[in-house]
Formats: sequence, C-alpha cells, structure tokens
Amino acid sequence: MRQSDLLQIDFEPIGKRIRINSNQSVLEAAQMAGIQITALCGGNGTCGACKIRLMSGTSSPLSDTEKKFLSEKEIKENYRLACKAFPKSDLKIFVPPESLSTSQRLQLEGIKNISDSSDCIIQRTDLCLSQPTLSDPRSDLTRIKEGLSENGHLCTRCNYNILESLSDSVRRFNWKFCAVQREDELVAVLPSKSRILGLAIDIGSTKIAAYLVDLEISAVLSKKGITNPQISYGEDVVTRIAYADSHPHGREILQEKLITALNNLIRELCTEVGENSEQIVEIVAVCNTAIHHFFLNLPVRQLGVMPFIPAITDSINVPAGKLGLNVAPGAYVYLPNNVAGYIGADHIAMLLATGIHKLSKTEMALDIGTNTEISLSHKGKIYSCSCASGPAFEGAHIQNGMRASTGAIEKAQMIDGEMKVQTIDQEKAIGICGSGILDIVGSLRASGVINERGNFNRQVKNVRPAEKNYEFVLVNKEDSGTDRDITVTRFDINEIILAKSAIRTGIDILLKEANLQPSDIEEFIVAGAFGTYLSVENAIRIGMFPNIPIERYRQVGNAAGTGAIDLLLSKSLRTECDKLCKRINYIELTSYPDFRQILVDNMRL
Amino acid sequence: MRQSDLLQIDFEPIGKRIRINSNQSVLEAAQMAGIQITALCGGNGTCGACKIRLMSGTSSPLSDTEKKFLSEKEIKENYRLACKAFPKSDLKIFVPPESLSTSQRLQLEGIKNISDSSDCIIQRTDLCLSQPTLSDPRSDLTRIKEGLSENGHLCTRCNYNILESLSDSVRRFNWKFCAVQREDELVAVLPSKSRILGLAIDIGSTKIAAYLVDLEISAVLSKKGITNPQISYGEDVVTRIAYADSHPHGREILQEKLITALNNLIRELCTEVGENSEQIVEIVAVCNTAIHHFFLNLPVRQLGVMPFIPAITDSINVPAGKLGLNVAPGAYVYLPNNVAGYIGADHIAMLLATGIHKLSKTEMALDIGTNTEISLSHKGKIYSCSCASGPAFEGAHIQNGMRASTGAIEKAQMIDGEMKVQTIDQEKAIGICGSGILDIVGSLRASGVINERGNFNRQVKNVRPAEKNYEFVLVNKEDSGTDRDITVTRFDINEIILAKSAIRTGIDILLKEANLQPSDIEEFIVAGAFGTYLSVENAIRIGMFPNIPIERYRQVGNAAGTGAIDLLLSKSLRTECDKLCKRINYIELTSYPDFRQILVDNMRL
Repeated sequence: MRQSDLLQIDFEPIGKRIRINSNQSVLEAAQMAGIQITALCGGNGTCGACKIRLMSGTSSPLSDTEKKFLSEKEIKENYRLACKAFPKSDLKIFVPPESLSTSQRLQLEGIKNISDSSDCIIQRTDLCLSQPTLSDPRSDLTRIKEGLSENGHLCTRCNYNILESLSDSVRRFNWKFCAVQREDELVAVLPSKSRILGLAIDIGSTKIAAYLVDLEISAVLSKKGITNPQISYGEDVVTRIAYADSHPHGREILQEKLITALNNLIRELCTEVGENSEQIVEIVAVCNTAIHHFFLNLPVRQLGVMPFIPAITDSINVPAGKLGLNVAPGAYVYLPNNVAGYIGADHIAMLLATGIHKLSKTEMALDIGTNTEISLSHKGKIYSCSCASGPAFEGAHIQNGMRASTGAIEKAQMIDGEMKVQTIDQEKAIGICGSGILDIVGSLRASGVINERGNFNRQVKNVRPAEKNYEFVLVNKEDSGTDRDITVTRFDINEIILAKSAIRTGIDILLKEANLQPSDIEEFIVAGAFGTYLSVENAIRIGMFPNIPIERYRQVGNAAGTGAIDLLLSKSLRTECDKLCKRINYIELTSYPDFRQILVDNMRL
Repeated sequence: MRQSDLLQIDFEPIGKRIRINSNQSVLEAAQMAGIQITALCGGNGTCGACKIRLMSGTSSPLSDTEKKFLSEKEIKENYRLACKAFPKSDLKIFVPPESLSTSQRLQLEGIKNISDSSDCIIQRTDLCLSQPTLSDPRSDLTRIKEGLSENGHLCTRCNYNILESLSDSVRRFNWKFCAVQREDELVAVLPSKSRILGLAIDIGSTKIAAYLVDLEISAVLSKKGITNPQISYGEDVVTRIAYADSHPHGREILQEKLITALNNLIRELCTEVGENSEQIVEIVAVCNTAIHHFFLNLPVRQLGVMPFIPAITDSINVPAGKLGLNVAPGAYVYLPNNVAGYIGADHIAMLLATGIHKLSKTEMALDIGTNTEISLSHKGKIYSCSCASGPAFEGAHIQNGMRASTGAIEKAQMIDGEMKVQTIDQEKAIGICGSGILDIVGSLRASGVINERGNFNRQVKNVRPAEKNYEFVLVNKEDSGTDRDITVTRFDINEIILAKSAIRTGIDILLKEANLQPSDIEEFIVAGAFGTYLSVENAIRIGMFPNIPIERYRQVGNAAGTGAIDLLLSKSLRTECDKLCKRINYIELTSYPDFRQILVDNMRL
C-alpha cells in the first residue's frame, strides 16, 4: 500500500499523528503512536476500557460490543471503543484522560485556565538610561525610578535584597537593562530582553509538581514532578509533625530537605529551557497546611494536636531568599490562604482552577488523599471539610499496595469471571495502586465475590484462606513481577471500606449542612492524581461517591497545580482567592452531631 | 556655719544641687558639685570662659571684670562669670554647654525635641484571648488580628520573622500578651505589660551614639557613645570604600564589624535599664551616605569615585534581623533619606531636629567633620553642599593633634601674652583636639603671632624654628603629659587654613546660589560634637564663619542624634523628612563656577 492510501489519525489533546491502514483499529493506531490507551482485555472488546471520542472523520459503524459498553449519552457524543473503531477517512480522535494508562497521564496536567499577562503582579520594562555625571548625580535607584516613571510605571520602593547588587548590576549592563517590578516595588534588574519567569509549585505530602512559566506570554515552558523528600521523615504529615517537634532542629531539617529538592527542581526546569534561575521573579506555592508550615519553617506542634490550629491562614508573601530558594534575589513566594489545619491552599487553588468561586451551580469538589478535602458550593456559600480517609488509595496499608508507578495494577475488571488487570507501563504486576484497588473492590462487590460487609464468598474461584481470614488471588506468582502471588485480602478490603466511608461521610455531612440531597449536585469535581485515574463507576459502586448521573462527574487532574499557575499569572485571582476564603464555612467533622453514626452507616459496600 | 545658713545653688540643665557659703563663688560651687566649668585662668577673672546665666535668686553686683567680658546682650540676659558671682540668696544657675569642659558635655546631648507617642509608628495592645477549640479553630494569627480589631486596631499582616515563633509564644504566654504593631503589621508579641522600646543610632565615621527609648513615654532610658570599629579599616570613608572594594568580602567585613559593635551596644543599653533587647521593636539609624551603605552592605565602589553616586537616596525600612541586629525578630530599621554621596541622612536628621523645615527664617546649618555638610534654608528652598574640610578638626594631620579625650587641649586663650590652655579632665596636656587648635590659631592671629597667611612673627616669645619652618610652643615638655613640648607648627596652621577655607567656601557658595549676603542669615546652627565645643568667636576670627552678630549662632550638640530620636517617635516627621529632601537643591561645589577662586580667596586668616 502506498503511503498516500494510508489514513491519518490525529490524537488529541496529546497532539500525536499517525498513518494507518483502514483495517487497523484506532487502538492499534494509538499503540503504534506510543499512546498507552487502557485495554485490559488486550483489544478483544471485553473490558470496555478503551473509550475514545471521534471528533471528526468517518469510521466503521458502531459494533454490538460497543453498544454494550457505551451509554446512550456516550453514543450520542460519538464515543467509541478504540479496539472496535476502524477508519474510513482521516480521523481526529479525542482520548479522555480516564482511557490513558498512568505513565501517559502526567500528574502535572490540569485543566487549562491561563490568564492574560496584563493582570500579572509582575511587570517588566526595558530601560536605557543616561550615565550619572557630576551635574546629574542622582542615586542609582532614583535614576531607575525616574526612568520607569517616564515609561509610565510607578516604582516607589526597591527590594532590599536587590539593592545589595543594584549599583554593580546596572553598571555591568552599561545602564541598558530590564527592570522588573512587583506592583510598585523593584524586584529585579536583568539583562535587556530577558524572559521574565515565574514558578508555580504544588507541594503535596507525597509529590511535588513544579511549572516554569513565562509570565509575559502566559505559557508553561517546562514542568516536572518529583517525590517530596520529607517522605523519609514520615509518610504522612502527622508523623512529620511529631518528628519536627521532637527532634532538635527538626523543623529546620524538614524545611531544608524541601528547599534543597526545590532548588534542584528549579535548576532542572531552567536548564531544560536554557534560562537562568535568576529570571524567576515570582513564585506561587500551594500546599496543604502542614506542608505550608514546613515550607515556611513555622511552628507545627499546635497543628499536630487537637484542635489542629494553623499559625496562619491568611495569604502571605515571603522573600524567596529568606527561604533559601535560588531564584532572583528580590523574588517573593506567594502562598494563598489556608482554611484550617487540614484544609490547605492546595484545595483553594483547586477550587479557583475549577472556577467554583464564579459559578452559581451547586457544585461539589474533592481532592482525595490521606486527607480528603471536600467543598460544596451552593447559593454563594461554600461548605468545606476534611476527612481522614487514610493512605489506602496511595497504596499504603494494603498488603500488596504500592504507589502509582511501573508494575502497579492500575485498572481491573471482572470479565467472564476472571479478574483482568492492567499495570502501569504494561509491565508484570508487582503490586496494586489506588485506582487498581478501587477497581478490584468495586469488581469483587459487583460480581458478588464479596458481600456488603466486605466478606468473601469462599466458594468463588481464586478466593483462598490467608494467614488471617481470606484473600483473592489477582495474579499468580508465575505471572507476576515478584516472587509471590498478588492478592487482595480481607484486611485490604477493610481499609478501603474505612477510606470510602470517611470520604462519603464528608460528602453527606456537607450536603446535610447545606440541606441538600445528592441529586442536587449539578457538578461533582474530582481532582488530584488519584482522582483523575479512578473509575467513577467503581467509586459509585462501592458507595464512595453518590449515585448521581455519571455525566455530572468531572475529573480534572492536578487542578491545584493549574490554580497555582493561574495565581502566578493573575493578580485579580489573588483577590478572588481572599474573597473565596471568606465565604468558606469550615465544618469540623469530628465534632459534628451524628458523625459517628453516619460514618458507620457508610461502611457498607 | 550652720547648714541652714548655707545657700543653695541649683545647676541646670545638669540637675545638681549644692550648698555653699556666701563668700564662695558660683565657680567654687560648681567645682564642689563636680561640674567642670571651663576656667582657663583658674578663676582669676582673666579668661572670661566661665560664663553662666543667673536664672533666679540674688547675687553679688556685676564686677568690672564681668563688664569687660560680657556683651551688653549677655548682661541683659543675666549672664555672669561664675568666678565673679557670689550668692546673696539661693540661686538657680544655667550652665550653657559652651562653658562646660568636654568630659561633662556628653556628645550624646542634643536639643530636645521629643514628640507625642500617639504619632509613633509603633503601637502596643495588651490582649487576653480565648484558647482555640474544635468549635473555634481560627488560626493563631486570625485570633490575634480579630483580638486587635476588637481593640480598635487594624492589623492586616504579620511579619514573617515573628510567624516563626508566634504560635509557641502565644501559648507560652497562655494567650495573655502584648501585641506590637508597626502601622498595620504585627511585628512583635511580648509578655504582657512589657515596655516597648526603640533604638535611635547616629552612626558617624568615627563615633556611634545610641539612645534606648521608651516609645510610649517618649523618654530616653539610656544612651551610650562608642568608637566606630570600622576605624581600623580606615579613618575616613574613602579609605574604607577602597578597602571594601579591593578585599574579598571587604563589604561584609565592614558591615559585620559595625553590627557586632551595635549588638554589644544594644546589650549594654538594655542591661543598664534591666530590659530585654527583644523589646526593641523599631530602630532609626542616621549615618552619612557611605556609612549608610556599609551598614546595609550596599555597593560602595560607585560612591568612592567621581561622580560619587549613592545606590539609594530614598528612605528605606530594612528588617533588623536581615542586618544581624539582635532585637525583636520583627523589628525594622528605618534609615532616612540621603541627599547625595557626601550628604547623608545624619545631616537631614540634624535639619529636622533643628526644625529648619518648619521655619520661614533664613537659616544656615552645618555639621563639621572630615566632610562638612552645610544647608541654607531660604524662602522654602533648601540649598545643600558638602565640603572636603579634612580631618584637622578631628585632630588628624596636626603634629600634636588628637581626638577630644583626656589630656587634649580643648580651649586656649592668649592672656597677657601667654597662651593659657585647658585640657579635657584637667589632666596634663598630651595633645590638641579640634576646639583647641581652633582657639590656638584664632588667638595667635588675634595677637599678631601669625599673619593673615599663617606665617609666624619670629620675634614673638615661644616662636622657634622647627624641623621645617617655625612652630609655637604651647606647653613645655616639663608641664606636659608627654616626653616632648606641645607645639603648633606652620604646617598645622596650614591644615586649619585649608579646612576653614573649605567650609567658608561652602557657606559662600550657598549664599551666592541663594543670592544672599552673610548678614541675611538670621540663624546659624552649628551642630555636632566639634561644633558644640568650638569657639564661635575664634571661628569668626579666622574667617571660617561669617562675621554676623554672635547671638545668631546656635550650637546645638548632637542634633543628628536628636533627629534620630524624633524620627523614632514620630511617624509624621518621617513624612516631613521625605518632603524636606524633595526641597533640597544639592550643589556640587567642585563643579561650581569660581569654586577654585573662592577657595583661594578664603585662605587668608
């Protein structure tokens, strides 16, 4: 077949293009293009995981298999199963994030919400000034201020940190340079025509995502995710707080670990795009409250014990140099508002990114982690709470649990009585990550292998006695990448029951507080890494999410990161952020009437 | 004589009281009270130096000797010679600073101008807050801000440095504490009822004067003067700038020397009054421009070479902790505006203290040092310049010159053809300080021992050939505290001619610029240590000061220090300071037309 006879397939939003034969499926095209679409059944049409949407072009007619797996709404919206769709012309295909396997789904991706650069707190002016003389002996700063004024910019003060080198810099630049202002404050003096950069960081307890942004063209130039190095001082923040409080210089050590990692990250991000870290003139960092305090070296003892009090919930601007960050000496780090000890600015950034503060819809938004923060927006009020959902969905406290990395079972489905699993990077299974365990428990429950209390039906194939109680074999030792069978135990199921119960209780109490029913929720936003990959169907199936039409769910990826980028680019969004936080009614679940009862009621699968 | 027959003499402003017999003179009373009134002739009525003013009470009638030494105006104002005044009743005596010998005249004293505490940038509030609970989980800062708000104080932000300890502090104080605000910013949290302190520092090239101030009662609690330790890196700022610029870490070393000395000073000032340095919540530092830059570790290279450009002339607030000062972690150092490379904030502080900015009089104010800064205020405009007067008046470049300390000849007068000298602390003469050399040159000129070019009349007793040219013997080896005669040489006289010519040239050019005659000067303010002790008569005699009525001269002591205290206590004065600086027309003398000619013309004695 000649090249011209091949049909062209464009994959969006990934932006990859491939040419295939008309008897090759869209799934095959994706595989050839290196796009890892989930296909638990290997393309046999038995799992229904490889959903894609046909954006333009003509393809083979809808098969019966597809009719079985796709809802009426999905069919109307041109959804197909990639394994059953064959091109009849060039096609444009949309790959929804839920159909991608983990390694493709960058946890850095979030919804796009980038603002106009004229609203940025940072403004640059390229200046070319006359040299000082005996008859024009104005001080260096006065000369610069007046130069800025002639360009229509008001500069009333100069960051002390840049004063330390200002005189030498402007002379080195021979009075031709780029002046960078943060509102009315001079914060950097850079070579003429320098790119003006900002850094948005989402610092989670486990992961850090950083985005290097060109503040003038409002574009992310490079991005990178790393593990929070504080993890070696405790997987969860409670352990880290205990460490910080009980070790001499514990706080300083935790801060230093973080700063060192961030400085490496900054160096790498800049090297990647050939820019200098001194061009980073503004940073936005969003964190949970404990990480926020560790980052700033604030006291955490009071945060670790009842009633879990933050030192500060207001937004704050801290000199980057004071924190030890290797960026422009005059740069500030802006940290948005925290709400409470267990609802931090990362949740707020997520809310801002999703636009919840602007919408009049009844909207619920949550970010699942060891603590799950939930907000409900209804008629101008926002109700927020934090649930102690535990680390089960991060793979902890699960016998074969692991983080979402190569070899982790990330998807699972019962097909013809067999549990089909898919691993990240299609490697041999070595454990189960959050989305995998959710799928497994959902599938076991749906197929009756476990009952509503989580107990196994011992008659079922692959259910076998374990050291204590029973377990279900997912992958035999021979097929696994380890020296043991990969199983899910009765205790694992219990962990999931506890986690989902905690989350559902938060959802229920917020609804109760707002006097609403689940069906009143018009949009249900699920954010964060795990939230992006989880199967909403299975979350509903085990009762973690309310049973409302699936179209109302929106999985938005790392919206906290997007919110951080938005806050970097938009000054007015920072004002919005303050206003949003004032509208929040924080609900302390543990002191809520009936909390215990609701929690217990939610323990049924 | 019974105690009740004794007459009581009160000395003001020193505040000492003594009882004497009616046949004892006021001078004897002063000597008994330990007050060192100048009396070159030893109380014989031949020097006229021991002028005092009778404030109340009756004394012996005016003697002929007194009529000879006192002007008509002085007689009208009840001036007397202490050696010739005997009490007829209890007396209240005012001792003018010029009649006191150095050791009594604290260089820390200045004119008094202390403001009302309600205008202070610092405000304190004693709070007693409720403990956080699960149902009131506001962050620590929010709790404090709301507590302040209930007390009528707006607090919108918290200094980052105090956040690092805020949570621990308020718990240690059991939520009962003193919150200190700097305008809308929380800068300190102290134990309840703490005294709120400020520090005013006048950092000269040679000397540092520091004042510990209670900001609420507007009172100086303790004060101390020390030598600027940077002196070991160069007596003058030019040498120090060269050092800073040519040595690795030169700038850092100079800054560190200064900070270490200031920290010692702070400790001593606080110890003296039993207060803690963490109670110092605000600092005002006034310096010349070079010292200002050294203090802040700013670049100085461009300040050391033509056209002598400061990095900054605006006022600036720098976190005290950033400079390494051991005071409240949230304290700021306020540094008022500089005018130019050789007119610093110390001169501005002096102008503020003298009230020049508020007066409509034609006023000249100057502060004599290695550089002499002069300002002329006339019809709303201020003309300022700096003269390179050299260190002669600081005792340098004078063969037997020394600083104003024990054993220095500080006063001299020709009496009956003999040069009578007085030393500091009445010890044997070991050298000559600034006020002494001025008196000596003035007396030598007045008595015709030298001519207008400074050449000796070789016929006069005590004039003898020296290694080069001639010299005048002041004190013989046998009477001196050294192993040599104390003399003044032709070269010494030349140094004084150069110095006085530089100063007078500055005065003349400012007058010329404002189109005024010397006689238009309504008030002539002489500030600074040397300025306080110098004899205005002799300054006029050698042509350093214009020959205007002596009553128009006002010697104000360390007005820069007073200005610093005022700026510490008054927020509105800081605004005045900005305004004042905008009104200044800086005149660069070296590029002024006819500068050389005027300078040469002024070289006649």
